[in-house]
Amino acid sequence: MTNSATNLRLKLPMACIILEVIIIILFGILVQYDDETDAKLWHKEIANGSSNYDNDFYYRYPSFQDVHVMIFIGFGFLMTFLQRYGFSSVGFNFLIAAFALQWATLMQGFVHGMHGGKIHVGIESMINADFCTGSVLISFGAVLGKTSPVQLLVMSVIEVTLFAVNEFIVLSVLGAKDAGGSMTIHTFGAYFGLMVARVLYRPNLDKSKHKNCSVYHSDLFAMIGTIYLWMFWPSFNSAVTAHGDDQHRTAMNTYYSLAACTLATYGLSAVVAHDGKLDMVHIQNAALAGGVAVGTAGEMMLTPFGSMIVGFLAGTVSVLGYIDITDTNIQKLKIQDTCGVHNLHGMPGVLGAIVGAVTAALATKDVYGDGMADVFPDIHSGEVEASFQGVRQAISLVVTLGIALLGGLITGFILKLPIYGAPPDTICFEDGIYWELPGEEGSHEELTTVRTPDEAEKLNA
Amino acid sequence: MTNSATNLRLKLPMACIILEVIIIILFGILVQYDDETDAKLWHKEIANGSSNYDNDFYYRYPSFQDVHVMIFIGFGFLMTFLQRYGFSSVGFNFLIAAFALQWATLMQGFVHGMHGGKIHVGIESMINADFCTGSVLISFGAVLGKTSPVQLLVMSVIEVTLFAVNEFIVLSVLGAKDAGGSMTIHTFGAYFGLMVARVLYRPNLDKSKHKNCSVYHSDLFAMIGTIYLWMFWPSFNSAVTAHGDDQHRTAMNTYYSLAACTLATYGLSAVVAHDGKLDMVHIQNAALAGGVAVGTAGEMMLTPFGSMIVGFLAGTVSVLGYIDITDTNIQKLKIQDTCGVHNLHGMPGVLGAIVGAVTAALATKDVYGDGMADVFPDIHSGEVEASFQGVRQAISLVVTLGIALLGGLITGFILKLPIYGAPPDTICFEDGIYWELPGEEGSHEELTTVRTPDEAEKLNA
Amino acid sequence: MTNSATNLRLKLPMACIILEVIIIILFGILVQYDDETDAKLWHKEIANGSSNYDNDFYYRYPSFQDVHVMIFIGFGFLMTFLQRYGFSSVGFNFLIAAFALQWATLMQGFVHGMHGGKIHVGIESMINADFCTGSVLISFGAVLGKTSPVQLLVMSVIEVTLFAVNEFIVLSVLGAKDAGGSMTIHTFGAYFGLMVARVLYRPNLDKSKHKNCSVYHSDLFAMIGTIYLWMFWPSFNSAVTAHGDDQHRTAMNTYYSLAACTLATYGLSAVVAHDGKLDMVHIQNAALAGGVAVGTAGEMMLTPFGSMIVGFLAGTVSVLGYIDITDTNIQKLKIQDTCGVHNLHGMPGVLGAIVGAVTAALATKDVYGDGMADVFPDIHSGEVEASFQGVRQAISLVVTLGIALLGGLITGFILKLPIYGAPPDTICFEDGIYWELPGEEGSHEELTTVRTPDEAEKLNA
Repeated sequence: MTNSATNLRLKLPMACIILEVIIIILFGILVQYDDETDAKLWHKEIANGSSNYDNDFYYRYPSFQDVHVMIFIGFGFLMTFLQRYGFSSVGFNFLIAAFALQWATLMQGFVHGMHGGKIHVGIESMINADFCTGSVLISFGAVLGKTSPVQLLVMSVIEVTLFAVNEFIVLSVLGAKDAGGSMTIHTFGAYFGLMVARVLYRPNLDKSKHKNCSVYHSDLFAMIGTIYLWMFWPSFNSAVTAHGDDQHRTAMNTYYSLAACTLATYGLSAVVAHDGKLDMVHIQNAALAGGVAVGTAGEMMLTPFGSMIVGFLAGTVSVLGYIDITDTNIQKLKIQDTCGVHNLHGMPGVLGAIVGAVTAALATKDVYGDGMADVFPDIHSGEVEASFQGVRQAISLVVTLGIALLGGLITGFILKLPIYGAPPDTICFEDGIYWELPGEEGSHEELTTVRTPDEAEKLNA
Repeated sequence: MTNSATNLRLKLPMACIILEVIIIILFGILVQYDDETDAKLWHKEIANGSSNYDNDFYYRYPSFQDVHVMIFIGFGFLMTFLQRYGFSSVGFNFLIAAFALQWATLMQGFVHGMHGGKIHVGIESMINADFCTGSVLISFGAVLGKTSPVQLLVMSVIEVTLFAVNEFIVLSVLGAKDAGGSMTIHTFGAYFGLMVARVLYRPNLDKSKHKNCSVYHSDLFAMIGTIYLWMFWPSFNSAVTAHGDDQHRTAMNTYYSLAACTLATYGLSAVVAHDGKLDMVHIQNAALAGGVAVGTAGEMMLTPFGSMIVGFLAGTVSVLGYIDITDTNIQKLKIQDTCGVHNLHGMPGVLGAIVGAVTAALATKDVYGDGMADVFPDIHSGEVEASFQGVRQAISLVVTLGIALLGGLITGFILKLPIYGAPPDTICFEDGIYWELPGEEGSHEELTTVRTPDEAEKLNA
Repeated sequence: MTNSATNLRLKLPMACIILEVIIIILFGILVQYDDETDAKLWHKEIANGSSNYDNDFYYRYPSFQDVHVMIFIGFGFLMTFLQRYGFSSVGFNFLIAAFALQWATLMQGFVHGMHGGKIHVGIESMINADFCTGSVLISFGAVLGKTSPVQLLVMSVIEVTLFAVNEFIVLSVLGAKDAGGSMTIHTFGAYFGLMVARVLYRPNLDKSKHKNCSVYHSDLFAMIGTIYLWMFWPSFNSAVTAHGDDQHRTAMNTYYSLAACTLATYGLSAVVAHDGKLDMVHIQNAALAGGVAVGTAGEMMLTPFGSMIVGFLAGTVSVLGYIDITDTNIQKLKIQDTCGVHNLHGMPGVLGAIVGAVTAALATKDVYGDGMADVFPDIHSGEVEASFQGVRQAISLVVTLGIALLGGLITGFILKLPIYGAPPDTICFEDGIYWELPGEEGSHEELTTVRTPDEAEKLNA
């Protein structure tokens, strides 16, 4: 099932070890504990009257762990729906996430500002690194089953770098708000990945078509991913917002958006699916669109009412997106989007950006009070009008789309080089090409042989 | 496998979308951010000397997320034990929980007091909504496999409403304590569900008998649910107790009760099960009874010693309950309790209510000190004697049982109307009736064909 | 498949119930709420100016729950890789963990100091009990599949007791630091378990060889365990360190160590595994070695750079350890280490102890500032030099190895008595010997029969 082209004995070790050695060297040169993780510096703050209980660890770490679960369990298991790609879904997700969070720490550190030539790390950099990783995993969803782990690592190197640049432009240069990353994470990751998938288009992918589908238990494993993403999305969107009402409100807005989105998803799934039945693809994916769509506006005074409307719309758009995925996408645009990231992250991300722009443009001192300083510091300080903040948000969406598409295009061509051990068209969506698979004969005998009643009784005797 | 009667193309979308639209409208009219989630109001408190770190988000949100995991992963996967009902177990659990938490926010808001005509929402309302949802999911366990999602949504509408009424009577009118919901959540949910199951009794359910059982992997999926419920039950019972020693003590009492319960469960399972072996049904369910049984008394000065005795008793009662579940329940009382919620939530819930009444009646100032004000404010203020608090608790149990049984009776008859697409007796416990199932031929070939050694070698080559 | 020797009808109930009754009696006599869980005592602190928000519950409980998940889901599911031992892996893990955490509370309470003849319990004792439980579960990994639950309970009784003694010697007598337990938990648990496995050596174990391997879905279940252990290890190592910078830094060091370890694991797995493919055994285990290896030094000023180097080395050592596991271990040393705990916990634990000793020896006031008081109180107070602290750490490793090996030896001989219902050589690694298994015929028909296209269509109709 493999041949020398897809043998990873040299390629993967070289990629992993060279990248890790580079990272370690750069960490040695550039990375330092921040004020809250350094023994000496923190105890200076203690000497100046701080309490250990003021350490930001206690106000961010629970959110961080929820985000961590979304990245490693959520994304990893969501992609196990394929019948024979569970090892790769969870395993490559694990690999590229472990890589990307290190690389992101460096890239975000470079771009967002060094402190005396050093990158300072603490709980916020850990959350931001996981966020960037999430974006890479979204792109992974678009090319799932058709790429080697070496390609994925190379993609991560480039995507993380461009993510950091785009995030810097959006948040620091343009002054937009995007705490939950409707634009910087979801829109960016989705369109980057879709463009990569476009460049890597395989006209003969239908040779692996029989493996590009789920089986009963693989769909249940995928539901583990879905439910974890759904539950912890409030933590994701609120993980880096300002402390106090901001985190509290963001979590709650996201919770309501997701709940409304779920009802829309079930309702519409029964409308559009075959024979009035529910389709697992919708439930696994579209029910999450509500979290994506309040990624920008969640920290604003969107109200529970507004959050539910946004969630309801996001679920609707997402389910409808899955209808013609095979036809339109593959045949017309030649984008083979394995997980349908356009429907889960792309369209809902754009929706979230627009909702954010509108909500920002409508911000008034009357509604936000002094809380304006946390949500829209530039409006609070009088530097900009609310309407202009809305314009900034809209421009940020355009910039994000531009960088994502252009970056994906270039990355796609780099990944097209025939040196990474990509699978041939005939064995896509198949773990056996990169993983030693457990023998199945033994298992077969144990698990599935029809036993005569006598044999069964003896077994249970 | 389906026919027009169970086709959901019209029924489910109508139910989901009409309910969600009603909810969104009511939220628009009635729901407001509370003081801790509203930007303006919170910053007024900041101006008055509060710190962002005082926001209740930081003292309740981790508990909320643990409860959230219990609701969506815990209950959802616990019910995947059925061999061909995993999509429905996780999927309908997801649907009705997403609905119920919204509806509960409204109903609990109405009943527990509006603020100037508005319902205020924040982390406490989120936890309380999840609690109410838990009650609905317990009832779901009793009717699992025999109801359509439309029936379940209708059941949720009524049950949530009655839950809020009962909760108001027990906590506010009668002044009982029930932080972890032995009465309001477990007893209520169980007896409501059992009565619904009684009314929906199917004399010919044995036509689906061969599907009403587990297979090897479905039992493992169910263990995911069990273990999450077990681990996070301390968070559940302590999620809304007073801050400080109360939350701390409640979590610890629950932890000890569960540990003792688990030992009792394993011990007794080997006694009562076939051939001195362990029975997964006991492990999956009875080991959790210790959490149910300290739902009322967990916040009191029950002591670790007392908690363990209660847990041990709960495990014992629960395992013994499973012995005659098929015989007694089905044949005599005509209650087909799919998940055995009577053994996991019903009896342990009643036990918990009794333990709570006794523990309350024994409360003394000597033991509680000034902490009495948090646990039993009315005893602290001298309004009632401890013994009378015990009586209040006992009356609350009776009221809860009454409302649950009556409510379940009425709900059962409403659900009996032949308009909801309920499954026929011959295809209960079967996902295929409401879900598009993945093709199995491909999977069969991949996963289970006996391979010759040659073929297997080639695959791994 | 069973006979009277392995029938647990009397043995398991006796073990469970006698042990639980002893525990409950001892708790009744000896255990009291501590100052933070007792209503009266805590409210005295409140009266003296404390705030409810100062209760340690809020600063330890989220970490505790993460550790709890590692113990019950992490260890439990990690061991489900065996094709027919999933019930036992999760189920016996559940049983012995629920027992061990109670027993550990007593043993650690005895050894670490009573308060007026009483053991005080609160969130720290809960975390420490879970830690001790972790050690027992590591040993369980070495004997997995070859022991009855009664043997495992007896092993737990002894191991927990010796763990508490060793922990006392290392932390209190020798004054070593080991917050994440590289020595006290991992090294101790691994070498204790390996010695037990040595004494219980079965020359004819190859009779069960065909069951001592994984199947596709069992490997996916195991990945649930792996990923949870990986994600929450930062919480494990930081759960009982000092508040403030210590917890923050420990979590972050662990996070970086694990990330680097994962890259090393993937890289090396492709080098050493068959045909340049990845081996699930490496991914499931070696990727975690980075957490073990910073268990001692994680709270020190190891720097992210240092943490990554340690993680990288740990992953390397661990993968290499798995190469010759079958050959060397079984044939030469006669240790049948089912889960390879030597590679995951043994060698990385020793590495972690050495790293801890070196890092401690290099501690300077210049780097730690006043934070020295938290990390190395004896160096801070001038009682010892840093170099001597390093020596203490090294001695602690030797002591730990000695107690573990000797304890394991004695325990092994006790477990060898033919009274515990151990499985015969021919039916090791098989759930059916201790568990009622679900019937498989029904399932077979449902799940795996090749359907004709006509039948399949009818099913989905």
